[in-house]
Amino acid sequence: MQPMQAQMGYDRAITVFSPDGRLYQVEYAREAVKRGTTAVGIKCKDGVVLIVDKRVSSRLLEQTSIEKIFKIDGHIAVASSGLVGDARALVDRARVECQINRVSYNEAIDIETLSKKLCDHMQTYTQFGGARPYGTALLIAGVSDGVPRLFETDPSGTLLEYKATGIGTGRPAVMKVFDEKYSDEMGCADAINLGLAALYAATEGKFDVDNVEIGIIPLETGMFRKMSKAEVSEYTTTFEPEKGAEE
Amino acid sequence: MQPMQAQMGYDRAITVFSPDGRLYQVEYAREAVKRGTTAVGIKCKDGVVLIVDKRVSSRLLEQTSIEKIFKIDGHIAVASSGLVGDARALVDRARVECQINRVSYNEAIDIETLSKKLCDHMQTYTQFGGARPYGTALLIAGVSDGVPRLFETDPSGTLLEYKATGIGTGRPAVMKVFDEKYSDEMGCADAINLGLAALYAATEGKFDVDNVEIGIIPLETGMFRKMSKAEVSEYTTTFEPEKGAEE
Amino acid sequence: MQPMQAQMGYDRAITVFSPDGRLYQVEYAREAVKRGTTAVGIKCKDGVVLIVDKRVSSRLLEQTSIEKIFKIDGHIAVASSGLVGDARALVDRARVECQINRVSYNEAIDIETLSKKLCDHMQTYTQFGGARPYGTALLIAGVSDGVPRLFETDPSGTLLEYKATGIGTGRPAVMKVFDEKYSDEMGCADAINLGLAALYAATEGKFDVDNVEIGIIPLETGMFRKMSKAEVSEYTTTFEPEKGAEE
Amino acid sequence: MQPMQAQMGYDRAITVFSPDGRLYQVEYAREAVKRGTTAVGIKCKDGVVLIVDKRVSSRLLEQTSIEKIFKIDGHIAVASSGLVGDARALVDRARVECQINRVSYNEAIDIETLSKKLCDHMQTYTQFGGARPYGTALLIAGVSDGVPRLFETDPSGTLLEYKATGIGTGRPAVMKVFDEKYSDEMGCADAINLGLAALYAATEGKFDVDNVEIGIIPLETGMFRKMSKAEVSEYTTTFEPEKGAEE
Amino acid sequence: MQPMQAQMGYDRAITVFSPDGRLYQVEYAREAVKRGTTAVGIKCKDGVVLIVDKRVSSRLLEQTSIEKIFKIDGHIAVASSGLVGDARALVDRARVECQINRVSYNEAIDIETLSKKLCDHMQTYTQFGGARPYGTALLIAGVSDGVPRLFETDPSGTLLEYKATGIGTGRPAVMKVFDEKYSDEMGCADAINLGLAALYAATEGKFDVDNVEIGIIPLETGMFRKMSKAEVSEYTTTFEPEKGAEE
Amino acid sequence: MQPMQAQMGYDRAITVFSPDGRLYQVEYAREAVKRGTTAVGIKCKDGVVLIVDKRVSSRLLEQTSIEKIFKIDGHIAVASSGLVGDARALVDRARVECQINRVSYNEAIDIETLSKKLCDHMQTYTQFGGARPYGTALLIAGVSDGVPRLFETDPSGTLLEYKATGIGTGRPAVMKVFDEKYSDEMGCADAINLGLAALYAATEGKFDVDNVEIGIIPLETGMFRKMSKAEVSEYTTTFEPEKGAEE
Amino acid sequence: MQPMQAQMGYDRAITVFSPDGRLYQVEYAREAVKRGTTAVGIKCKDGVVLIVDKRVSSRLLEQTSIEKIFKIDGHIAVASSGLVGDARALVDRARVECQINRVSYNEAIDIETLSKKLCDHMQTYTQFGGARPYGTALLIAGVSDGVPRLFETDPSGTLLEYKATGIGTGRPAVMKVFDEKYSDEMGCADAINLGLAALYAATEGKFDVDNVEIGIIPLETGMFRKMSKAEVSEYTTTFEPEKGAEE
Repeated sequence: MQPMQAQMGYDRAITVFSPDGRLYQVEYAREAVKRGTTAVGIKCKDGVVLIVDKRVSSRLLEQTSIEKIFKIDGHIAVASSGLVGDARALVDRARVECQINRVSYNEAIDIETLSKKLCDHMQTYTQFGGARPYGTALLIAGVSDGVPRLFETDPSGTLLEYKATGIGTGRPAVMKVFDEKYSDEMGCADAINLGLAALYAATEGKFDVDNVEIGIIPLETGMFRKMSKAEVSEYTTTFEPEKGAEE
Repeated sequence: MQPMQAQMGYDRAITVFSPDGRLYQVEYAREAVKRGTTAVGIKCKDGVVLIVDKRVSSRLLEQTSIEKIFKIDGHIAVASSGLVGDARALVDRARVECQINRVSYNEAIDIETLSKKLCDHMQTYTQFGGARPYGTALLIAGVSDGVPRLFETDPSGTLLEYKATGIGTGRPAVMKVFDEKYSDEMGCADAINLGLAALYAATEGKFDVDNVEIGIIPLETGMFRKMSKAEVSEYTTTFEPEKGAEE
Repeated sequence: MQPMQAQMGYDRAITVFSPDGRLYQVEYAREAVKRGTTAVGIKCKDGVVLIVDKRVSSRLLEQTSIEKIFKIDGHIAVASSGLVGDARALVDRARVECQINRVSYNEAIDIETLSKKLCDHMQTYTQFGGARPYGTALLIAGVSDGVPRLFETDPSGTLLEYKATGIGTGRPAVMKVFDEKYSDEMGCADAINLGLAALYAATEGKFDVDNVEIGIIPLETGMFRKMSKAEVSEYTTTFEPEKGAEE
Repeated sequence: MQPMQAQMGYDRAITVFSPDGRLYQVEYAREAVKRGTTAVGIKCKDGVVLIVDKRVSSRLLEQTSIEKIFKIDGHIAVASSGLVGDARALVDRARVECQINRVSYNEAIDIETLSKKLCDHMQTYTQFGGARPYGTALLIAGVSDGVPRLFETDPSGTLLEYKATGIGTGRPAVMKVFDEKYSDEMGCADAINLGLAALYAATEGKFDVDNVEIGIIPLETGMFRKMSKAEVSEYTTTFEPEKGAEE
Repeated sequence: MQPMQAQMGYDRAITVFSPDGRLYQVEYAREAVKRGTTAVGIKCKDGVVLIVDKRVSSRLLEQTSIEKIFKIDGHIAVASSGLVGDARALVDRARVECQINRVSYNEAIDIETLSKKLCDHMQTYTQFGGARPYGTALLIAGVSDGVPRLFETDPSGTLLEYKATGIGTGRPAVMKVFDEKYSDEMGCADAINLGLAALYAATEGKFDVDNVEIGIIPLETGMFRKMSKAEVSEYTTTFEPEKGAEE
Repeated sequence: MQPMQAQMGYDRAITVFSPDGRLYQVEYAREAVKRGTTAVGIKCKDGVVLIVDKRVSSRLLEQTSIEKIFKIDGHIAVASSGLVGDARALVDRARVECQINRVSYNEAIDIETLSKKLCDHMQTYTQFGGARPYGTALLIAGVSDGVPRLFETDPSGTLLEYKATGIGTGRPAVMKVFDEKYSDEMGCADAINLGLAALYAATEGKFDVDNVEIGIIPLETGMFRKMSKAEVSEYTTTFEPEKGAEE
Repeated sequence: MQPMQAQMGYDRAITVFSPDGRLYQVEYAREAVKRGTTAVGIKCKDGVVLIVDKRVSSRLLEQTSIEKIFKIDGHIAVASSGLVGDARALVDRARVECQINRVSYNEAIDIETLSKKLCDHMQTYTQFGGARPYGTALLIAGVSDGVPRLFETDPSGTLLEYKATGIGTGRPAVMKVFDEKYSDEMGCADAINLGLAALYAATEGKFDVDNVEIGIIPLETGMFRKMSKAEVSEYTTTFEPEKGAEE
């Protein structure tokens, strides 16, 4: 994305619209997201799952420290793509909002309510000077009132709910897979297999059990948990790319 | 809209007039509105209706999450076009104003009063530095004192009341239809059909029941409600473009 | 008004004088006024009148929503030209000043006092950074101590009292008519006819009863009221351009 | 006054010295004064007088609203030249200082004390950013302790006491007349005639009784009053330019 | 690293994204780290060690004043590379966080908790204007709950846990050595020898006992201590480059 | 002093060092001092004297209003050169410091203490943005503990004590005279004659009794007083340039 | 030091890193130090000494007013080089820190603690906008717990302890002498002779008893005192350059 003559100067501050009504700084922040690792989220009949690609560049790195799926509250988790520090700041804010809700109303926060609060917060960074927009996108997943929810945000503070979606560098490949194969009738196991197929397409097959982190919030418990390496490997070892990608 | 030599430099900050007395940043913010999806509002004998075009780009998206008509208070709703995050911020503010009015005076806010408060708020973002103008337009509809009201705002904080109007990318086509066919004598059903005809013209016929959201505040109840998909489909399936567009 | 080489750079901020001691941003704000619709005010033996041209571009617009004459207090009204949102902000401020005066001193505010307060407020926007000057001019009309008063302000915060004056795009034409025909001996009816003649000249005859709004503060009551459409039409239907313009 | 290559850039902010130790913004503010109407002040044996040229461009303007001589307190008056809104802001401040002095010390403020307070205030606008210097000069006249005083300020906050002086566009012509003809032995009547001669020279004879406003603080009463039109006309009708200008 | 045409202007403020979604100021801050002296950290079976290269340029300098390993709390130490003053500011902050934890919860802070707090703090300097990012990287080492931990931060506020890692000018050489030779089965003595081999490679052999500072937090005590010169020399004198670098 | 290519851009703000470690804005402020009228101060066996050149350009100006020597407290006086408004602001501050000292400690302030406080204040204007440095130099003279003191400040906030010194446009000429003729053994009368000789040299002989103001703080009383015109004329009329300048 | 093309623009604000991770404003502030007069500090067996070169340009200047060695507390002194006003501001701060320590803990501040506090303060001026870094370096000398300490700071807030060091324009020459001749075994008298030799080399022999100021904190008393002129002359008169410089 090369800046053209026309937009030069309109893209230096968040407080400036371009002549065609665009906020270039927000669009540039989206570029930071596009350079991030891929994360996918899928709603299914009996829950919602988050799957992320943790490409580890060095054997010296403790894999557990590459956190891409964050538990926000018992019933909510977030997957992020983009600037790591920004994601952590948003995650902190999300956790505080959950605690405030518990203290104020003595109940767990509704997932849509939390998502809107985060987006409202992100929107202010697109309208006021003195700071830059967040360079991160989030998948916010959880179960509220017995219903699985899956929201996606981006640096503009836009909020959309998806049946299945992806963020980060592999988003186009992921969405193509989902568009072709997603079905409302899937259970969580099918959803995970579909997610792996999408990640497989997005990473051109470069992933194994160590690269993949899976989070799940089943309807039954309504509680988030990360899958153990053993559980993940059950899926990854039986994963058949052809089946996933071309079935 | 290409910036000309003359205006270069006058369009970088909201605190600067151009030599011909224009505020380019406000005009650029209007461009953000012109790129938004189309929304229409129509006053009729027995109420006021809002109809929006929800062009959904992907089957994976939960349509309910594309909110374009917002309930503000029991008797007021807003349709928006332009930057989604900005619209949500204004909607939040409107809701708070309604609650303040209820708490302070123990009665529902007058629709014109609310509209002016929102516009006053938007105006300050056109006069003071450190922020950009809102990149959104609103249609504010409701019933006060048994009278249907329909206001339109834009990023400059200008407030106008219309009998029928539209915002967003399809506004020129919409206004042409309204100008030719609107009548004070219409009832809500006729108004909805007229609105669909206008949207049909604005979107070159690319809409179906899933794309259209209809909100209505009938004089009888004075309470806002969104129409169910079934109700909407009654209108959309019986809709005859020729009748609407050329009658 | 094309910016010349010499003034380049001196016209970007209100806190900067040009080498010849001018404040370009104030002058540019005046251009915003010059682009506004025309409003006239006339003092007469038995009161003071305000007449505005409400050019409505669309039959879909509720004419009542194009407010150009604002009641400020029982005995004061304001007509504006220029940026609509700015005018509304000044009107709000004027109304608050009136209420403060009533609460503090238990009497109606003097019109000159109010006018100076507004101008002092507008002046600060020409001296301090972080905001732009108001892009609006006001005609402030009323009756204090049994005397009709008519003040004109502009974006610089200058305050002048006129016998008869006009603001907005038609000001030159209006002033020419007034200069030729105004007399201190006129009553309100004559003043209205003169005002219509001035507007007729300013708009090249393009006005009818629907375009014209008339406000009057008669000496007898000292109270402002807007004329009804019926009253206005009495003047507009009997109006003879030749008489008004060439008598 | 054309900006030269060398000073380019040093004249955009009050917080920046030029390489030769000048503050261009202050000098530009002085240009605003030089473009103002002429005002003169003269000390005499039995008081001090202020005379201003009120060039009224239109018969529609209420002459009383062109205020160039302001009563500050019973014993002090101010004549201004330059930006009208700035002058009014300084006048307001001066009046408040007088009231503070009366409340704090139960006595009228000393004229030199007031003048220094105003200049200190004006100086801060030449040292701190975020605002521009005042574009106005003041003649501060009054009687303290039985002595007539006449101070002149300018945008830099410099304070000088004169026997006779002038500000505004006609200052050079005025000073030439005063330099040639002023005498400490003059009484108020002679001083007024001298002032008229100076204004006559400054305006190339274009003034009449309606253009001239005269304020006087006689030693006898120590109280300021504006002369009535009748009084002024006694001077203007008997005024002999030759006598005044060439005697 | 030469700035290219394209990034010119996007790299002057932390509040501005470049068109490709990068924050150049953060990347430039990383350059400050790359110019710093090398520090390494290694986790081992029975603890965690930090080793730094203290290249002293002058015999007149008190070596003790070149602090590169800082005790933060009894169980935590930090090694830094980059701007010395920035490192000290972060160290101060870390120490305060530890004290706050002890006062609030009456227990030692968890190492991961402390590391996240520091990174959150560093992240804010990458999003808000008015300051620059920290020009320093940290290795945070310690023992929590009987487990050795080793975190690395950088100016972006990213946090990663390593088995063995290095910061500063010699990082590439260090990581190459670690990648080839690091084993989870190492004890502290082996780890120190490996660290010396890495530093030896990074400094091209230019180090002796006086240049090297070693800190250790053994599992047994869980308490940090710096090794005495005698202890260090035991390792350095028996150190065999060939063995370390090529074994 | 013409700005060279190299310093362009480094001289626009006080918060920016030039590549050679200079603060151009401070140096430019010194230029404002160099353009001021000349003032000299001389310590002698029995006191300290201040002599200033009050070049009055017009006979209409009240000479008393050109204040160049200011009484600060009973035992301290200040002579200034440079921007008049800035000097008055510093004088006000100095007077307040003296009063604070009297109120806090019930004794007169030490002259060195006062001088340091003023310089500390001036220094902050050379380090923080949002304002410009003071464009004035001061000679601070007085008697503390029976010892005459004479300090000189400049816009950088540097403080030096002199036996005899001068500020303003004539400083080089003044210092040459002092360097040749000053002696510690002089009494006040000799010091005044020497000061006149120095001013004579600095003004190329263009001064007379009306131009010269002399302040003196004799050891005997330790109290400052300005000499009367009669006293001054005793010195000026008996003043022999040859003697003073070439003796 | 000529700015190169590449660094243009990166050196205008302290909040901006250059592409190679440098802070040019800090480096430019160091240039201000390099232009200052030379100061040296030397630790010895029985104390620590500070010696400064007070080059006085004029016989009219009171030498005592050129303060280069400042007593901070009974046991601490500071020598400075660079901007005089900045040094005084830091000295004031140091004195306050000492008093705070005495009041809070009822004991003298540790010298290293004080030095770190000063450096932390100086570091903030290298990270936050709105001010410039300090243009001064300090030698902080004293005795704590019976041990002589000697710290050196610079504008970056870096803190180093030396056995012997120098700041200011003569630093390279000074360090060369110290490097060749310094020995831990020296007593104070030898240290002073070495310091004079270093200053002699740095000033190319242009110093005499009047130029040199010596401060000493002997271990015995642990209290700082400046040497009298007589004491200094004992050293300077017996000083043999050859011995000092070439021994």
